[in-house]
Amino acid sequence: LPFSAIFVPGALREAVDDRAWLQAMLDAEAALARAQARADVIPADAAAAIAEACRGERFDAEAIGREARSAGNPVPALVHALTGAVTGDAAGYVHWGATSQDVLDTAAMLVARRALDLIRIELDAVMASCAGLAETHRGTLMAGRTLLQQALPTTFGLKAAGWLDAVLDARDELTALRLDAQLGGAAGTLASMGDDGPEVLREFARELDLTEPPLPWHSSRGRVAAIGSALAITAGALAKIALDVQLLAQTEVGEVLSGRGGSSAMPHKRNPVEAARARACALRVQGAAGVLLAAVAQQEHERAAGAWHAEWEPLSEALALTGGAASAVRDALEGLEVRPERMRENLGATGGLLLAEHAMLLLAERVGRPEARRVVEAAAARALDSGRSLRDELIEDGQLSAEEIDRALDPARHIGSAGAFVDRALERYRA
Amino acid sequence: LPFSAIFVPGALREAVDDRAWLQAMLDAEAALARAQARADVIPADAAAAIAEACRGERFDAEAIGREARSAGNPVPALVHALTGAVTGDAAGYVHWGATSQDVLDTAAMLVARRALDLIRIELDAVMASCAGLAETHRGTLMAGRTLLQQALPTTFGLKAAGWLDAVLDARDELTALRLDAQLGGAAGTLASMGDDGPEVLREFARELDLTEPPLPWHSSRGRVAAIGSALAITAGALAKIALDVQLLAQTEVGEVLSGRGGSSAMPHKRNPVEAARARACALRVQGAAGVLLAAVAQQEHERAAGAWHAEWEPLSEALALTGGAASAVRDALEGLEVRPERMRENLGATGGLLLAEHAMLLLAERVGRPEARRVVEAAAARALDSGRSLRDELIEDGQLSAEEIDRALDPARHIGSAGAFVDRALERYRA
Amino acid sequence: LPFSAIFVPGALREAVDDRAWLQAMLDAEAALARAQARADVIPADAAAAIAEACRGERFDAEAIGREARSAGNPVPALVHALTGAVTGDAAGYVHWGATSQDVLDTAAMLVARRALDLIRIELDAVMASCAGLAETHRGTLMAGRTLLQQALPTTFGLKAAGWLDAVLDARDELTALRLDAQLGGAAGTLASMGDDGPEVLREFARELDLTEPPLPWHSSRGRVAAIGSALAITAGALAKIALDVQLLAQTEVGEVLSGRGGSSAMPHKRNPVEAARARACALRVQGAAGVLLAAVAQQEHERAAGAWHAEWEPLSEALALTGGAASAVRDALEGLEVRPERMRENLGATGGLLLAEHAMLLLAERVGRPEARRVVEAAAARALDSGRSLRDELIEDGQLSAEEIDRALDPARHIGSAGAFVDRALERYRA
Amino acid sequence: LPFSAIFVPGALREAVDDRAWLQAMLDAEAALARAQARADVIPADAAAAIAEACRGERFDAEAIGREARSAGNPVPALVHALTGAVTGDAAGYVHWGATSQDVLDTAAMLVARRALDLIRIELDAVMASCAGLAETHRGTLMAGRTLLQQALPTTFGLKAAGWLDAVLDARDELTALRLDAQLGGAAGTLASMGDDGPEVLREFARELDLTEPPLPWHSSRGRVAAIGSALAITAGALAKIALDVQLLAQTEVGEVLSGRGGSSAMPHKRNPVEAARARACALRVQGAAGVLLAAVAQQEHERAAGAWHAEWEPLSEALALTGGAASAVRDALEGLEVRPERMRENLGATGGLLLAEHAMLLLAERVGRPEARRVVEAAAARALDSGRSLRDELIEDGQLSAEEIDRALDPARHIGSAGAFVDRALERYRA
Repeated sequence: LPFSAIFVPGALREAVDDRAWLQAMLDAEAALARAQARADVIPADAAAAIAEACRGERFDAEAIGREARSAGNPVPALVHALTGAVTGDAAGYVHWGATSQDVLDTAAMLVARRALDLIRIELDAVMASCAGLAETHRGTLMAGRTLLQQALPTTFGLKAAGWLDAVLDARDELTALRLDAQLGGAAGTLASMGDDGPEVLREFARELDLTEPPLPWHSSRGRVAAIGSALAITAGALAKIALDVQLLAQTEVGEVLSGRGGSSAMPHKRNPVEAARARACALRVQGAAGVLLAAVAQQEHERAAGAWHAEWEPLSEALALTGGAASAVRDALEGLEVRPERMRENLGATGGLLLAEHAMLLLAERVGRPEARRVVEAAAARALDSGRSLRDELIEDGQLSAEEIDRALDPARHIGSAGAFVDRALERYRA
Repeated sequence: LPFSAIFVPGALREAVDDRAWLQAMLDAEAALARAQARADVIPADAAAAIAEACRGERFDAEAIGREARSAGNPVPALVHALTGAVTGDAAGYVHWGATSQDVLDTAAMLVARRALDLIRIELDAVMASCAGLAETHRGTLMAGRTLLQQALPTTFGLKAAGWLDAVLDARDELTALRLDAQLGGAAGTLASMGDDGPEVLREFARELDLTEPPLPWHSSRGRVAAIGSALAITAGALAKIALDVQLLAQTEVGEVLSGRGGSSAMPHKRNPVEAARARACALRVQGAAGVLLAAVAQQEHERAAGAWHAEWEPLSEALALTGGAASAVRDALEGLEVRPERMRENLGATGGLLLAEHAMLLLAERVGRPEARRVVEAAAARALDSGRSLRDELIEDGQLSAEEIDRALDPARHIGSAGAFVDRALERYRA
Repeated sequence: LPFSAIFVPGALREAVDDRAWLQAMLDAEAALARAQARADVIPADAAAAIAEACRGERFDAEAIGREARSAGNPVPALVHALTGAVTGDAAGYVHWGATSQDVLDTAAMLVARRALDLIRIELDAVMASCAGLAETHRGTLMAGRTLLQQALPTTFGLKAAGWLDAVLDARDELTALRLDAQLGGAAGTLASMGDDGPEVLREFARELDLTEPPLPWHSSRGRVAAIGSALAITAGALAKIALDVQLLAQTEVGEVLSGRGGSSAMPHKRNPVEAARARACALRVQGAAGVLLAAVAQQEHERAAGAWHAEWEPLSEALALTGGAASAVRDALEGLEVRPERMRENLGATGGLLLAEHAMLLLAERVGRPEARRVVEAAAARALDSGRSLRDELIEDGQLSAEEIDRALDPARHIGSAGAFVDRALERYRA
Repeated sequence: LPFSAIFVPGALREAVDDRAWLQAMLDAEAALARAQARADVIPADAAAAIAEACRGERFDAEAIGREARSAGNPVPALVHALTGAVTGDAAGYVHWGATSQDVLDTAAMLVARRALDLIRIELDAVMASCAGLAETHRGTLMAGRTLLQQALPTTFGLKAAGWLDAVLDARDELTALRLDAQLGGAAGTLASMGDDGPEVLREFARELDLTEPPLPWHSSRGRVAAIGSALAITAGALAKIALDVQLLAQTEVGEVLSGRGGSSAMPHKRNPVEAARARACALRVQGAAGVLLAAVAQQEHERAAGAWHAEWEPLSEALALTGGAASAVRDALEGLEVRPERMRENLGATGGLLLAEHAMLLLAERVGRPEARRVVEAAAARALDSGRSLRDELIEDGQLSAEEIDRALDPARHIGSAGAFVDRALERYRA
């Protein structure tokens, strides 16, 4: 696909593609057979024969997809094909007592686990970059900006530490997600397994290394929505990094260089393409997560008549595109050129006004706060009018010595706990 | 794909797939060359050579997709390939003065037009079914239900007329969508075309039979969002039909039979799979439309740094899945078995209480409204308590003759303008 | 408000109304002063004077709202009013070193905590009802329904246990939410507090019993989005219960009676109004949660230029409406009339076909699975055609005795682990 | 409300507040009575008495709200109060044959019409500002920026023309919205009006100057969703303007000054608060529009059991907040200070590289395109390396005279159709 290849790295696309789902469904069927054999519900050699047949490369995903249309899901066609692939009596035990949703939901959790592993690898790389930037630039002064206006000095290290902290949060949330096996049979009672239901369920979850749920969750979809929301928050945190990178990389700001994009017609241009990809991915993950959230409420009785079917592709998309966002931010940060001198230069753009508060604090020690405020506000107003620097206006005022004024207007002396906060983020990261 | 084949008919999948987008981009390049030749911006034989080369089957979509990752969009890779495919001097005129977004946005409109045509075919079939049902069942009595409770009698014809009217609205909205050509060059000024910009734009739009926009709309994305919203409303109207079908098909209601799904283990079950597919599609179109709506606000300057990139696949999805919803509802309605006798039977489920209001209206003609209300409410209360029918209670009351009571409790006499409304919908349909 | 009073109980409306926010902002200001006094940043008596003045009833919320328009948030106007309310030198220490977002974000967490407490009270009542129903109806047979069609028998107890399990999940998620204090000053560095920043932050969080964050989170909004998502999932789980109640209460199903709504004109109608309110609330919480999710990605630098401002009311709405959904489901369940006899009656609606699988399993023990399948499928097909019961067809077939057939078609013998699953849910609830 | 006053102007808040809804419901009741009198369904003097009583100030909105909780909507409580306010026999004709949804949906359309009128006033002012800027700055050169990087020159006039064009689109969409009267009675058949239904419907719509729908639309909600979507697109177009203003107002860009926000501690800071408010409003309108879109699909039978109830407040919010966005952008533009000299200065930030394409085009006329490309690319590469200007590098190259180079690097000569596009937008605006 021209488009999906732009946004999603190959490994992640493969982790959620047709063959991945197919194999995950087969893994669920194999695990079911093994679990039932262990619970003496089906013969051990039948289970072995079934498990043996559950290899994706033997099946025609395309054909299963076509056949799936009339059932509304691919499991009946797959079970049909699998039954055909198993020889002898064992064929009769394929999918024994299970319902399509058991297999598809369990497969979804297997697909999610694999994709989440890949996402975490990208996030780890993003965090390594953030941590490196936070450490290297712990003291690199730059303007802190609120509402897109310079506010007070900060450090690039603290900015990177903020990115790091948000990704750590996101990573923790993803790691805490519960990935439950699904097994309930046609109506959620495991009717065909007599009293052996709970044992089969336990063994089934164990086989697949998924969590054992208290009860089947065919129409209780908070779990799936929670995956979507955690992915959307993760992608959002990544998009925030991408947005900051783009804003810093603006031609007129120039504090970082990002992006390999360029054109012969516009040789000066370095498009922050990686960051743009990350932001695009995040926007789309929100859409997918919204579908999963909406599905929770639309669960009729023991199986939803549409809302369940709506989950499969948005879940795949949310996983793939969050991975895409992570991979894009990773690329953006690994290729980032930081320009401390430009940061310092921009910090001077307001002619010292950025530090007016600091000057006021220092002057207040001598003349009290009210007088200090009066003096500095007046000087600042004159500076804004005249275009001269605050330094010049304050010198003219004569209440502080040039040395004191220089100290007052030194951004390095007015960054409060920036360093301490960087250290806290790095500690958390290393823990 | 196992999943997309479930939800989206083949023709629609092809209308929005990689090759469709590739060909649409090539159509835009060919039209650009021809338009520029007509405006004497490039030589006519160069235009002919370029147009000649713009055949999708000559290009490797997969390779273009891979190369597209670094640029963030597929156009540079395509232009590179196309330039290679054009011989001689003409190669120098490929993509002359255009920007990637010109080609991709124009291609999006071409893809949308093709898909919308296919969607309308499905909608036409849906409307034909609805109109047929409305006409056939103009007098078929059934319970009208509000908040999922029987309220008053209605007809199945009026229900189908309501479906029809909503699809007519949706079809009109889709038809009214503006599909604008896009041409602005790198910064929306058509800088490289000197004074010829407007003429080239006009000819370009004419070549492709797209609307000519007043100005380039690189970062003015209301048009795209409007397509998404119209599709979401269409899919929603279809999902409402699907929901009604599912509710009528419930085992305990049984007023229609819908769906081919079944299983040997549950021979009684006819899963309304088509309707479930339609509802699933609609849920997902909402997600895609939400992405397109969100993109409108996130348009930095002359080209967005992410929000534009987020549009491509959600637009494809919204088109494909609306088509999927239409196709599914078409299948559901074309295979619908309507059971008037069961409708009539259910209409009696409340033992006449559904008609209490009507009895009150008739009795009021004789004894005034206050007394009529008192009598009928008392009879209804007794009926609810005793489980006897309202008819029996009213007879016991003695204020109306059995004949009068039967007339009062005849649902056919209390459906007001149902027939007139059916006729209005059919007139609109035929117009 | 006519509308909000419909959906949200009074206590929850008050928990998120103007006065609640006002008091929460004042609580943040008071805690800030106290924390700074403890860290020797401001004098203790100044802190006492400030804290003393922080009483909402002294301030004019309306006036603050009007003044807030020009600043884009209510804190400057509040600080101005508060400074006026504090006498003497202490006035100079109001809001010392803080930024508007510190106060508003902290207030948001206080408002959220209070509202979450109220939501949990409603959820506890919902769970008590669910648990009671699960226990009472552990053995109450009913049809399990998938895609709105009867599938296999289940119990009403298991249905209620499923509701319970989902609400337990939701409650756990809400309880696990991190409610962090916010304190960073104008650019997130706590610049005006010198080296005392971390200590003030720690004391500030402790004063308010909120979590201490590693760093300020002015533009790291995953926390807020996570609250929104958890609320949306909670509301979704509640809406699923409401939907089930409405479906069971349908006139033609009649397995429960729910709702006090009625009308004199339609005496038979008991509108499931509470359930409708719950579903309406859930739909709207999804909208609000979507805004909070979208905001995460749109965080420019150290404070967002719009996305932060977009959070306040959606957060209030998500809290209030989730409470509304919980309160509505509580009402619906506490007033629920369960009709086991009707459940049993509906279970027979398919003339035994619901148990065809069970009959096949029993017959298979005697004649093997292939033959059993052939016999039962043939009988079922005849039953579907003829309208006779499966029992009659199987008796005619003669392979099983009448007694065996009755056993085979007894739903109580084919509910598998329903009881065990109920017990698991109740155990979890009691733990 | 502290919050709503920040975002929404007073007139718009009043247009959607409780009293506005109350009066709109009363207007619907009055119109119903008059329409029925005209169709001889009820006596003329009863209609007059009812209409006379329909004055909002007579009713206690608070009390109606409280009472509304049990019915799930405010109409029964209002009808009860209204009936009490009408003396004599006329009381018996209040709300004759109507259902709650008739009154509430019709009221919604009346509320929407009033709010849309107010929104259009704000949009007109926004367009007047845009048109003024487009005209004044038709030739004001500035950098065109794509992906937040300088790309090619454009004019501020063209940027403003783009804003104007998008708002014109939005205004047209809002104006084209269909505002239908609603009248169907309890089940959409107008059962109690016998054969007079269509006539009453026609007169009812005429009384209120709303469109007459072909049939009742109780569960066909595309109309309402279309209002939401059009509002979201409008708000998005406004947010795009706000975003551009904020980006241009950045400290380091400084091409416009916007916003009255400031602080004594940060005297240099002019927060673009109006633009921030606009963007916040737009984000929230998207949430509200999403609820309205989602509702379309969830319409059970003749009246939805929750999705209808979910519409009321999101519709009010979407209207109010779109008005808020328009009002905020109006303020932002009316107070905008444009700084053409800074635009020109930033245009030079790349030392002429922005015009490399133009230089290449000119040189190509002499040496052919391949050689021109080679020369200019080499010069550009040297300029990027050395930090010297492209002009200096080209002069050193010696292929073009200094005069030619200056012409090549003059941005005014490379803005293509910018002026023509401005004129097109202004023509459209004036038409």
